[in-house]
Amino acid sequence: MSFRNFKVVPRMVFGRGSFNQLDEILEEQRQTANDWVVFVVDDVHQDKPLKDRIPLHEQDMLLWISSKDEPKTTYVDELTLRVQAFHPGKDPVSVIGIGGGSALDLAKAIALMLTNEGGSASYQGWDLIQNPAVHHVGIPTLSGTGAEASRTTVLTGPIKKLGMNSDYTVFDQLVLDSELIAGVPKNQWFYTGMDCYIHCIESLQGTYLNEFSRSYGEKALDLCREVYIQDHSDKDEKLMMASLMGGMSIAYSQVGACHALSYGLSYVLDYHHGIGNCIAFNALEEYYPEGVVEFREMVKKHDIDLPTNITQGMSDDDMEKMITTAMKLPPLWENVYGPNWEQEVTRDKVRSLYEKM
Amino acid sequence: MSFRNFKVVPRMVFGRGSFNQLDEILEEQRQTANDWVVFVVDDVHQDKPLKDRIPLHEQDMLLWISSKDEPKTTYVDELTLRVQAFHPGKDPVSVIGIGGGSALDLAKAIALMLTNEGGSASYQGWDLIQNPAVHHVGIPTLSGTGAEASRTTVLTGPIKKLGMNSDYTVFDQLVLDSELIAGVPKNQWFYTGMDCYIHCIESLQGTYLNEFSRSYGEKALDLCREVYIQDHSDKDEKLMMASLMGGMSIAYSQVGACHALSYGLSYVLDYHHGIGNCIAFNALEEYYPEGVVEFREMVKKHDIDLPTNITQGMSDDDMEKMITTAMKLPPLWENVYGPNWEQEVTRDKVRSLYEKM
Repeated sequence: MSFRNFKVVPRMVFGRGSFNQLDEILEEQRQTANDWVVFVVDDVHQDKPLKDRIPLHEQDMLLWISSKDEPKTTYVDELTLRVQAFHPGKDPVSVIGIGGGSALDLAKAIALMLTNEGGSASYQGWDLIQNPAVHHVGIPTLSGTGAEASRTTVLTGPIKKLGMNSDYTVFDQLVLDSELIAGVPKNQWFYTGMDCYIHCIESLQGTYLNEFSRSYGEKALDLCREVYIQDHSDKDEKLMMASLMGGMSIAYSQVGACHALSYGLSYVLDYHHGIGNCIAFNALEEYYPEGVVEFREMVKKHDIDLPTNITQGMSDDDMEKMITTAMKLPPLWENVYGPNWEQEVTRDKVRSLYEKM
Repeated sequence: MSFRNFKVVPRMVFGRGSFNQLDEILEEQRQTANDWVVFVVDDVHQDKPLKDRIPLHEQDMLLWISSKDEPKTTYVDELTLRVQAFHPGKDPVSVIGIGGGSALDLAKAIALMLTNEGGSASYQGWDLIQNPAVHHVGIPTLSGTGAEASRTTVLTGPIKKLGMNSDYTVFDQLVLDSELIAGVPKNQWFYTGMDCYIHCIESLQGTYLNEFSRSYGEKALDLCREVYIQDHSDKDEKLMMASLMGGMSIAYSQVGACHALSYGLSYVLDYHHGIGNCIAFNALEEYYPEGVVEFREMVKKHDIDLPTNITQGMSDDDMEKMITTAMKLPPLWENVYGPNWEQEVTRDKVRSLYEKM
């Protein structure tokens, strides 16, 4: 048996207002007067005060990205070309992602694609990346995905939704400023935080788990409860820590049925990961009875309008495609059922779960 | 206000039996046939089965170290010279510390002194180290000090007990194999684990604390309780995680009165850090009332023979020296009393606390 030797983000700043230290942090990367950086920023910030706080030097690039859709490989490749065209022949010395999970994943993906040729679709999978990425920094303005801590960047490609999973994917630096996640629209705040909550429920109950991941997962779950049930006065800080620790807990654990089904919802119906998880989780009482009860309490407490009956009237083709996507994730189902998962996870079974959504 | 941009150990393996992966992990560092590594191992392992499991290649050095005394700067310098003499003119490509807090701190210190000239006493302090260390790996066989996660290496020098505190001090790799901490003598297991417990009590109650350190500290404390109060069946794994998370919580927190007094006990009476903390903590009801009650329950439950009356019959000179050492740690006292600590922490006050031990 071999245990994963996992890569952790080696530098972090945590604190309310720490975004103000970004220029100083990037200074270490700028070795010559021509060195430049690219800020990959979610375009929801285009009209917000954060825009004017970005420490943009004359030679730097500010790249607004859209998180309307989940990141696609074609979009990554297009953005990478735009970055390369900004100063032809000279790569940026740092790629700084500012936003939610999509912006962070796009920043990671661009940093990787600047040094690895051939387009992002060819690197979807585990440890296919050959060369170290350009230095990259993650600055969440939305918390819960764990993208700040993970070794993947989830991408929808021509034939699959799968990350570029590698040690080089991991950020070199995080700036965790809880001030930045205040003021997120309520639904989005809820769906994104539930990504963390659900992922902890799935992994703590899974067959893949050791004490490292259990300790991180349990604390992340406690923090989610302080945020979404107890309405703690430090809830922004606590959600930020929940997301980080939830992301760390992934080292030796795995998500389960909910994430598998949610991947199908994203791939076929374009649901964002967070809301997709919530829709799927709500139909999974038989898997996570206590978690689903607590989840519904939180939905009620925060007056969240969770979409229902979303698979009614779908074409058979789409349903089949969704079932196929969900079933193509053996590690997730194995985490639920153990090695004989294939006996349990039949197409009919998956269809019946989707029909409840 | 500026927040610390702190350095985290960038790679970790966690798992029962993961020590078996050490050779493979070191393979990445060996670039040429002459590349060699040094294993810095606590000599308590000299007659134990672990000795034969060390993946020693022909050109490697096995350096047994004594943890009878707390690490001294003179000892670090002597060991560094021995390492340099082993293959003159060619530094090792990795320094691997195997043991408790002393072995880990000595490995960090040797890795630093191989690349920084002038002797370790000249680097006792904050950020005095100029050059990156040789790659270094931490493998605890005793858990609780947090030395595996910290950016310091505590050393007793000619004029002070103070660490070489720097980003370069942080290990490059950890191997956290809970199998290795089974079978530690009970008293040592207790005193070392209490280092973690006490440090969490001090930091969670301190004036220096943010949510990052609170989350880590709270979880470390929960894990200590599972180990020392609930006698959990996974207690080796849990203690290992408690130590790691306790070490991480130091990022934005500080220890307090107990560690300050314990430093004095070590400096003058040669008490090891773990037992020194326990002796001091037992006299600190006025500071940590609930913690001290719980601590005494654990002492009783595990039938630990805590030394008492240790300052009776001390010379006045020694007592004065001990008081001076304890008072020379402003950040620790500030964490207890806030910025006006000097009004509270008088020599008489400190003496009265020592007299209770």
